[in-house]
Parts: sequence; C-alpha cells; structure tokens
Amino acid sequence: MKYSKLFSKTNKTAPADADCINAKYLVQGGFVDQEMAGVYTWLPFGLRVLHKVENIVREEMNVLDAQEIFMPCLQPREYWETTKRWDSVDILFKIKSQTEKDYALGATHEEVVTPLAQKFIQSYKDLPFATYQINTKFRDELRAKSGVLRGREFRMKDMYSFHTNLEDLNEFYARALQSYLKVFSRCGLQVKAVEASGGIFTQNQSHEFQALTSAGEDLIIACEKCEFGQNSEVATLNEGDKCPKCGGVLNKVKGIEVGNIFNLGTKYTDAFDVNFTDENGEQKKVLMGCYGIGTSRLVGAIVETFSDDKGIIWPKSVAPFQIHLVSLGSKDATVVEQVNSTASSLHDELESAGIEVLWDDRSDISAGAKFADVDLIGIPLRLVVSEKTLRENSVEWKERNSAEAKLILSVDVIESIKSFLRS
Amino acid sequence: MKYSKLFSKTNKTAPADADCINAKYLVQGGFVDQEMAGVYTWLPFGLRVLHKVENIVREEMNVLDAQEIFMPCLQPREYWETTKRWDSVDILFKIKSQTEKDYALGATHEEVVTPLAQKFIQSYKDLPFATYQINTKFRDELRAKSGVLRGREFRMKDMYSFHTNLEDLNEFYARALQSYLKVFSRCGLQVKAVEASGGIFTQNQSHEFQALTSAGEDLIIACEKCEFGQNSEVATLNEGDKCPKCGGVLNKVKGIEVGNIFNLGTKYTDAFDVNFTDENGEQKKVLMGCYGIGTSRLVGAIVETFSDDKGIIWPKSVAPFQIHLVSLGSKDATVVEQVNSTASSLHDELESAGIEVLWDDRSDISAGAKFADVDLIGIPLRLVVSEKTLRENSVEWKERNSAEAKLILSVDVIESIKSFLRS
Repeated sequence: MKYSKLFSKTNKTAPADADCINAKYLVQGGFVDQEMAGVYTWLPFGLRVLHKVENIVREEMNVLDAQEIFMPCLQPREYWETTKRWDSVDILFKIKSQTEKDYALGATHEEVVTPLAQKFIQSYKDLPFATYQINTKFRDELRAKSGVLRGREFRMKDMYSFHTNLEDLNEFYARALQSYLKVFSRCGLQVKAVEASGGIFTQNQSHEFQALTSAGEDLIIACEKCEFGQNSEVATLNEGDKCPKCGGVLNKVKGIEVGNIFNLGTKYTDAFDVNFTDENGEQKKVLMGCYGIGTSRLVGAIVETFSDDKGIIWPKSVAPFQIHLVSLGSKDATVVEQVNSTASSLHDELESAGIEVLWDDRSDISAGAKFADVDLIGIPLRLVVSEKTLRENSVEWKERNSAEAKLILSVDVIESIKSFLRS
Repeated sequence: MKYSKLFSKTNKTAPADADCINAKYLVQGGFVDQEMAGVYTWLPFGLRVLHKVENIVREEMNVLDAQEIFMPCLQPREYWETTKRWDSVDILFKIKSQTEKDYALGATHEEVVTPLAQKFIQSYKDLPFATYQINTKFRDELRAKSGVLRGREFRMKDMYSFHTNLEDLNEFYARALQSYLKVFSRCGLQVKAVEASGGIFTQNQSHEFQALTSAGEDLIIACEKCEFGQNSEVATLNEGDKCPKCGGVLNKVKGIEVGNIFNLGTKYTDAFDVNFTDENGEQKKVLMGCYGIGTSRLVGAIVETFSDDKGIIWPKSVAPFQIHLVSLGSKDATVVEQVNSTASSLHDELESAGIEVLWDDRSDISAGAKFADVDLIGIPLRLVVSEKTLRENSVEWKERNSAEAKLILSVDVIESIKSFLRS
C-alpha cells in the first residue's frame, strides 16, 4: 500500500490528554482516532492490527471446536431481570425504544447465550459444546481511561461452554486455559494465568491472564518458569517462595489483564432453568463456563509492552504491515525517477509474494520525517531505497528493534525478507 | 464439519410468526435465532453465509481503493445536533450515560465520518479518498418485519467518499455503482440500479439497488437488458417503453432494495464546516458521497430469491458449505461401519482439499429426516454414502437445484466436485 493514498495520517505531536503509552502512540501513529472519552474509531493501520489479533483468537477458539456465532447488542430487559442484574450492574447502558420497551446494551452476553443454548439442549447427547463470538461490547464506565485499555465501547471475544458435569467442565476449562496462553504467546506477550479467587479445584474457579510489562497496573506474584501466578491482592504465596506447580521461584511483577475465564457453575442455568435429561432420564442443571478476551484491550497491552521513546515495536504476528519501504528524495530529478521506479518494483514484487508492505512514497517529506514515522508506526522491518543504495545495487535494511542498519544486495532482498519473516 | 458436533439445529416446524420466506427458512434451518422482534443471533450456519457476503463486499470495496476502518456505535449528541438530526431522525436510539452524557446509537455514520475526515483534510492534495466500514447498525423501527430484511439491529457496509469537485465525485460514484452491481452479481442476484430521485446529472443524484424477485415489496420499471430501472413511485417511463440507456424494453417487475448510493453534495461538510485549500490557496467545501449495503438484509434477499417449498437454494458463492455429505444407516452393523468409514475418509479428503463440507453423521436420524434437512439448509451439492452406493463403488450425487440424482464412481468424485464448484 502506498502511504500517499492513505487518508489517515500520523500526527506530529502526541495527544495532550494521553495518560499512557497506548493512548499516546496509537493516536499519534494514526492507528485510532478518539471520538470521545473511551470511544475510538479504528483507522486503517489500527484495524489491520485488530483484525490480526482477532484472527489469532478465532483460530485458537476453532481448535477448541468452539462454534462461532454473532449475538445481538440489544438485549431485552426481562433477561437481565431474570438474572437479577438489570439493577445491580452499574455499567449497564439502558435504552428505551419508541415502543416503550427497555433494552440493555450488551456489556456481556450470559443473558443472551443462556436462553439461546436452552433452545438446543434437551438431553445429555446435546452436550458438551462451546460457542463464541467476536463482537463490540458497551460499558458505561464512570471514568474511561488508559486509551484502548478501558473504554466505553470496545471489542471482545466471549466464549461460553455447556456441560453435563463438573469433570467435563474442568477438562474443557483446562484446555481453554492452554488455548488462551497460546493466543497471548502468538501475540508476542509473556502471560501468566493468575488465580483470581479460590483454589484450582473449587467449583467457582477463575483465572485472569496477566501480560507481564513494566507498564502494568496490577501487581502479580508469578513463577519465573511456568504460567503460574497469583494476584497480589489475594496472594497466599510471597516473593521468593517456590511455585506450587513447578518448583520455580516466585517473583513480584507488574501485569495488564488481557483475559479471564470463569467456572460459572449453575449460576445462569439456575436463573433461566436450563436442564438436560441424563442417561437415566433424570432432569439435571447444565453447568457453564465463560471465557473472555478483550481484543481491543489486547492491542493496547501489546503497545504498552513493546515500545520505546520513538514509538511502537510491533511483534511480527500482529504488525499492520511486515515491511515499511521508504524511498528517499534527491535534488537530481533523474535519481528521483530511478529511486521511485526501483521502490515501485520492489513494492509490487513484495505484494505479489503476499508480503504486506507499506511504501512511504511521499515526495514532499524529508528523510528525517519519514524515519520518525517509521519508528512511530513500528513495522518490524524498514527498507530504504535512495541514491546511495542504488549506487551499491543494494537496499538498506533496519529492523525496528535494532539500532543497526546494513546494506543488502538487491538480488538477495526477497529471500532475506522471507527468512526474516519466518524467524 | 460434523453435524453431530453442531450445537445449533434445524427445527421440525417453521416459526409461527414468520411473515416471509427468509424469516421462515433462516430460523427453521438454524441460520439465525430470533432474540426479540427485529433482533437476531447469527448461528454457525448463518454467520458463515454472512461472513461470505461481507467478504465479497469487502473485496469489491478494496478494488475501489476504499480504506477499511471501524467507527463507534456510540456517537455524541453534539454531532447529531450539528446536523440537526438529533430530533428529526425518529428511528434514532438515544442513551443517557451515568455521567449524564447523551449518545446516539449508530443508525448511520455521517455524523462520525465527517468530523473524522475533517481531521485529515487540509489541502486538495489530501483528496479524493473513500473509506468504509462493516459494522452493526441500530434503528428504533416502530415495526420490525420481514425477518432479517428490516431489523432493529442489523449489519451494514457503509462507505463515504470525499472530493474536491463534482466531476471527481461523479466519476467515483459511477465506479461505485459498477462495484455494487459486481457485489450483487457475485451473490447470485439480478439487480437493477434504480433512479431513486432526480436524473443522472443532477447534483443530488441517488440510486437504489433492487434485487429482482417475485417476493419483492417494491414495483420497478426495469430494462430487460441493462441495469437501468426506475422506482414505479417516481417513474417517468412506462412498461413497454424503450430503455433510455440501451434501447431495451422496459418491464414492470418486483424487487427488494439491497443497497443505495447518494451524492450528498456539501450537506454534511456544510454542517461540520469541512474545507480544503485548492491549488490557488482558496478555501472550498469538500463534496461527499455515501454508499450503503445492508449485508444482513442482503442475506435475506438472497433467501427470498432462491428457495422452493422445501427450503433454501444457496448460490455457491455464499452457501454455508459447498458439500452436504450424508451417511445413511443400515440394520447391518458391519455395513454401518463401512458406510461411516467411507464417509469419514471422504469428509477428511474434502476438508484437506479446502472444500467446505457438512457431514450429517447422525446415527439416530432417518434417511428421510436427513434429506429434508438437506433441502431446508440448501447447500448446493448433496452426496450420499449408503449400503447401495458402497456396492456400486460410488457416491450418490444430487444438486440442490435439480431433481435428478445419479451415481458417480468414488474414484471420480473429487475431480467432479472441483469441476462443479468451478462451474
């Protein structure tokens, strides 16, 4: 894609009210635009990242054999009264229609998925199953903050599982936990599965997933070796203790919550009276688990984790583009033509090879301004075509997370890129 | 995918309150579930169709070089007051937050995209551009009706283009019109671009796209040869007249509206005072066009167009799966094992070849009930493995839009399928 065709642009200065790194760099880099406090438009760069994150989530949920659906944001008041949450959930947006009907605006979807599942569950033969959606959520936060980390409108993957017995629920819960670790690992994050309350074998087990970063808001007691962790607010173990899972040493670290999973037991199936007939013809309550990942929040956590004082440093798996190609100007018009023609061929060749390339083809911008944009946007690999590189039959190669720039012979560049992207 | 693993299921009977074909078959076939009037959950089958339709739309918008973004559903009251639509748009859902802020719930996005575009437009060099999103829309309809054709919550692709002059806007408008015809044609529909008001060269040009179907609600005067049409309510031409574009004969036909495009002129850029500096340094108003396709409505229109008394007949391009594989039972346990093993191998082979297959592997369902589900769900090609086909080293082949079933030798089946899918 040519930068000159892009309608959204980077900003010279960071937003004055940015209270954290992601609010600063995502806005300044032209990834998102703040419509109002806690509400953002995802611009072309940002939406590419969000889609990549959501596709990683989708792939891992599909590996669990969870079935994707898409539930409504408008939810009837009666469902929320059935679970006694209409009045008790203070962040619930409420709407009255022209026809005087009251709706909740989806802050979560237990109130939709439970009566939906009820329609398809009769006997034990219909169980277990898991279903998920990737959708927009709405929460009437008193104070939106931290960029895309805590918004009033945000993106979420929410999965719900349904079971005949606790053993089956626990088995799925354990597999979902591993899938979550896989998702975060594919996004480049180091994440601990932190016991949020209770122990591992209680019925109301839950875990929150904490991405370790010095910019984190939460304090965690985490194993240096395995995925074990405890939120310091409820921790039963201390820094220096041995990990109960693997014997590794526990450290105190900072984290950002990027997901959580809950054994819901029969909380919602009691409310909606969701039963199944077991092998002996007896009616029993269905057990449920729920599993959430805030996908837009995850993008924010990645930025908090991977940046320097110049901008974002995207992991390859979620970068908006893989290559940032820069063509530099010259006072000599013939050289400008040669540079542009070389850059254009390379751009087309990369696109043909299925490699995502952003080509900064702007002619009225200085080299310094272009390089500042490269660092701000944070694409993993910068390639420069200039008068100097043409003389050397080369392209300048600089990785975003390295200070070193080197020349690569033009004939070797495609193979070098493929090897870089595989690594 | 194995049918036995699917949590959503077909229903034996149609919903009692279905007022049209799509409301009947989409619910009965397990494509959608009605949460409340005008609000649906998209179940696994339905979401597969919706995603295919939305990907066709996405591909064609990308061909136009339009840039995908994702705008908020929550929109500040002030923007809607700026365009004087806060009080005048009666289907606008309005929300009051805990902090006493008023929001509109996105019924359309001119109020978001115009001030967004303003942030990135300074001079003529920033123009033209087009941007679009695929998102959920909300409309407080007094009466939701016709299944997914007119809902209170629905899916839409909305694109907005920005220009320095009318000639440039008209040129993009004409290209967008052709892209729309391409989208509908890829979805299997015969669609006319109907003049909704004014003539072709007035500033406030608009077209609605009408899918021709006997189940349509609108009456159209349409050319039998080209895409020309007029809505009968504003028609200046009559049945039997010659088409002003190609000379073909005009007929009176029924249609369902599946999209519309508008030359907005400076309506919204006047309201938000969006200007650009032209080549002579003068400030001028930006011109806008907008272009909408209701993607969930489009799924409904496809069902209204392609069905018979047994169920849906999906066009290949948007079918939830390409193959519906059915394995039949037998009183002989050895035969059951052979049938299942053969069907399982075929299922795996098709999936490996990237062909989407739904395998009805249920063991406790009669052949008649399975075949009724095949017709209801409407996948283009049915393949049957049974005691009889095993004896003949064959698979039974029946296309959904044909009454004829035939045997194909097992060794030829993959090649025959590939050839069928290409046709």
